[in-house]
Amino acid sequence: MSEKELTRSVWEKDFKKWFRDVLKNAEIVDFRYPIKGFGVWLPYGFKLRENVLALLRKRLDETGHQEVLFPLLIPRDMLAKESEHIAKFDEQCFWVTKGGKRRLGEELALRPTSETAIAPMLKIWIRSHKDLPKRFYQVVNVFRYETKATVPIIRVREVMTFKEAHTSHATPEDAKKQIKVAMDVYKRFFDDIGVPYIISQRPEWDKFPGAVYSIAFDFICPSRQTVQIGTVHNLDQNFSKVFDITFEKADGTRDHIWQTCYGISGRAVASAIIANGDDRGLVLAPNVAPIQVIIVPIPKKGYEKRGREACDKVAKTLSDLGVRNEIDDREELTPGSKFYYWETRGVPIRIEIGPRDVDKKQVTVVRRDTLKRWTIPMRDLGKAIPKFMDEMTKQLRSKALRWMNGSIKWVSSLEEAEEALKNYVVEAGWCGEKACGLGIEEKTGASVLGIAVDKRPKGNCLVCDRKAKHVIRTALTY
Amino acid sequence: MSEKELTRSVWEKDFKKWFRDVLKNAEIVDFRYPIKGFGVWLPYGFKLRENVLALLRKRLDETGHQEVLFPLLIPRDMLAKESEHIAKFDEQCFWVTKGGKRRLGEELALRPTSETAIAPMLKIWIRSHKDLPKRFYQVVNVFRYETKATVPIIRVREVMTFKEAHTSHATPEDAKKQIKVAMDVYKRFFDDIGVPYIISQRPEWDKFPGAVYSIAFDFICPSRQTVQIGTVHNLDQNFSKVFDITFEKADGTRDHIWQTCYGISGRAVASAIIANGDDRGLVLAPNVAPIQVIIVPIPKKGYEKRGREACDKVAKTLSDLGVRNEIDDREELTPGSKFYYWETRGVPIRIEIGPRDVDKKQVTVVRRDTLKRWTIPMRDLGKAIPKFMDEMTKQLRSKALRWMNGSIKWVSSLEEAEEALKNYVVEAGWCGEKACGLGIEEKTGASVLGIAVDKRPKGNCLVCDRKAKHVIRTALTY
Repeated sequence: MSEKELTRSVWEKDFKKWFRDVLKNAEIVDFRYPIKGFGVWLPYGFKLRENVLALLRKRLDETGHQEVLFPLLIPRDMLAKESEHIAKFDEQCFWVTKGGKRRLGEELALRPTSETAIAPMLKIWIRSHKDLPKRFYQVVNVFRYETKATVPIIRVREVMTFKEAHTSHATPEDAKKQIKVAMDVYKRFFDDIGVPYIISQRPEWDKFPGAVYSIAFDFICPSRQTVQIGTVHNLDQNFSKVFDITFEKADGTRDHIWQTCYGISGRAVASAIIANGDDRGLVLAPNVAPIQVIIVPIPKKGYEKRGREACDKVAKTLSDLGVRNEIDDREELTPGSKFYYWETRGVPIRIEIGPRDVDKKQVTVVRRDTLKRWTIPMRDLGKAIPKFMDEMTKQLRSKALRWMNGSIKWVSSLEEAEEALKNYVVEAGWCGEKACGLGIEEKTGASVLGIAVDKRPKGNCLVCDRKAKHVIRTALTY
Repeated sequence: MSEKELTRSVWEKDFKKWFRDVLKNAEIVDFRYPIKGFGVWLPYGFKLRENVLALLRKRLDETGHQEVLFPLLIPRDMLAKESEHIAKFDEQCFWVTKGGKRRLGEELALRPTSETAIAPMLKIWIRSHKDLPKRFYQVVNVFRYETKATVPIIRVREVMTFKEAHTSHATPEDAKKQIKVAMDVYKRFFDDIGVPYIISQRPEWDKFPGAVYSIAFDFICPSRQTVQIGTVHNLDQNFSKVFDITFEKADGTRDHIWQTCYGISGRAVASAIIANGDDRGLVLAPNVAPIQVIIVPIPKKGYEKRGREACDKVAKTLSDLGVRNEIDDREELTPGSKFYYWETRGVPIRIEIGPRDVDKKQVTVVRRDTLKRWTIPMRDLGKAIPKFMDEMTKQLRSKALRWMNGSIKWVSSLEEAEEALKNYVVEAGWCGEKACGLGIEEKTGASVLGIAVDKRPKGNCLVCDRKAKHVIRTALTY
């Protein structure tokens, strides 16, 4: 192994190309579909997506969420009930206006998000405090008529993977507690898939239309642009009042329900692809990898049968442990080209079995992230492989976290911020005034991500120099 | 157990009401959404749907199909390339004509099916015979602007569950072989979910628009109306010619690819709901039941702790076996109301644990389909429950098959057919001429399902009295 093999220079310096190449070479998605911003999830990418979704569903199911499925289409008058909501989405929706050759009586939006699809049903279902809380989620496609340049998976017109949760509560306190639960679910989920994040409360001028406040998880790309990978919103009674969703309280009086919603999109898959990559291409955390261990026989004349048997034995051992594995027995390819093929696709662990290994009842193990090699006795494999996967998971996580923390910089002046934003997400003091926040955006051309929810204020406001009330984060964003 | 409890009189005599009540009482779907023909899958229904889909995916994955995900929208010019295809779907599509407030340059269809979405990508991906065969499938929502009255799950405008497979081959023989594979996959799948079916080759005038022939699986509802639950189509080179999808053959010449496609919709879930039902409501085959065993404690003062421990022990034994189970420990409900609750929801097996059972280290087992009761020693449970599920599966299957076979009648004259169609799907001799086929439809007001693929011809044609070449099936259809 040479250091050269593990460089991340393209990954860091030419991220756009790196990402495009990985999506193509690892066969994740293909965006050559004949409508701009619409693409196809390929078999390998689809499996990756499924693994990510399975981990997300697990976290939601174990915290009392129930999966449901709502219609794609939302009548205009429903979407329009909440004024902030329609103000934003009117411009961003695809609209169905015709059925067959007939003009429809009312325009129907392809859902941009489902608050207004769910509200009329909640109104039917919820009668009493005994019906609360309700915690629903669905995994669906949502649509945004995006006029900016599109980027595969990250900024698309059909978000093919959108997990949206919608909860209803009897008191504002219960709703706030749910916000904490949601944040905790998302933290655990992003840890599961090996993606580091920063959490910011979005500024007033960038919250979800219809929410009283929005908390966002952002991922820092190698280009130092951030991508919003998860959001949690407190809707208060904004939707329940306009849809008149009420319930009878224990004391016999009535109130409108208190709501939250929170979403994670295909960008979670994108961040899992990006977080651990290197110049050879994709590196996947074992948790999400479609194939966790690829077994490559190194053929030699006279060893065909014994080589095959050794591979089968390894495959069985791994399958019994629940390790996703495959034997690459394609005859038309050399071992070297197979190594390259699976490295490109980010398979965490490769097991090579050559004649020498067969003789010595051993295998050669190679880790994708370091390309380090080990010789392991066949009989120890059942213990060794899970340990390799655990260690790789931990090391990938700490490497990604280290990289992210090294990409955030504290600044004390607008000039410093402007300069630092070329290479960093910046943090600074903020007095909390909207004018100062907008001043940062105006001066730097970057976007305010919001208030760092986990940091105490220090120093003075970057703009007005008064004592800071918050740490504000600013970044170039996708 | 009294015979009365197991009647299927509402199921058979007032099927429409039975189906509507089951969907409501078992909380499967709710079609009170404010757009006609659009509904919501509720948590319990969603899990049932997931179990059905998991069995379908398993059958497809094990036969070399790869899951992918294509866009929802199809530009009009793509949908219009194949003339039969657009002739039918132009009238049946929902059309997106606006993005935000702008009129789109080209109208986009909500996919009614995805042949024309997939074709342009196949044209990019397929170069050589080495790229063939390709077997893709996806599980998506599809849309039909249905003008007839809608029926929940069965005839809807958003088909929320549509598994469509699309395969490409180098020779017409390979495509025909794939048709056999697809039929076999579907047979196994419907057996898996406990749904009996008849297979007919659709008449020329009712094949899939763009196919050279279509083979359909139909399910007979208690009302004797049939529902098409699966279709398999040979597309020949119809789409590959209009989309110009060619490949280089081994001999260096070029040819257009040969295609098949086959689909199964949410109607598979509907048929799994209907097939085994009775007047108490839903009866689910163990394979698809969200909860296979419900454990109901019968409380008694002084037995709280031991009762709880016994339930936990049973639950653990079942979970270790991979049996989906739940303990119903709701304190506000009586055991009797819990029995009713879970019977309505079709849970295959109920385990009751009362004080006497605790004392004797035993449990009481009740089967949903027969309501028969057994006493089983706790220590035998690990063996007994899988056996109960197996027996129930077999008996449900044979009962459903017997019912279906009793709902099919051979007829020898049009008058006999007309009369029999009130209570039967009818079979008869057919000369094979279109005029005679249409004559049956005209005279009876029913629909020709097509040729029974598994039956030898006998007798004479129902219309012209010439020697029959086929057995033709006719039914009232959904």
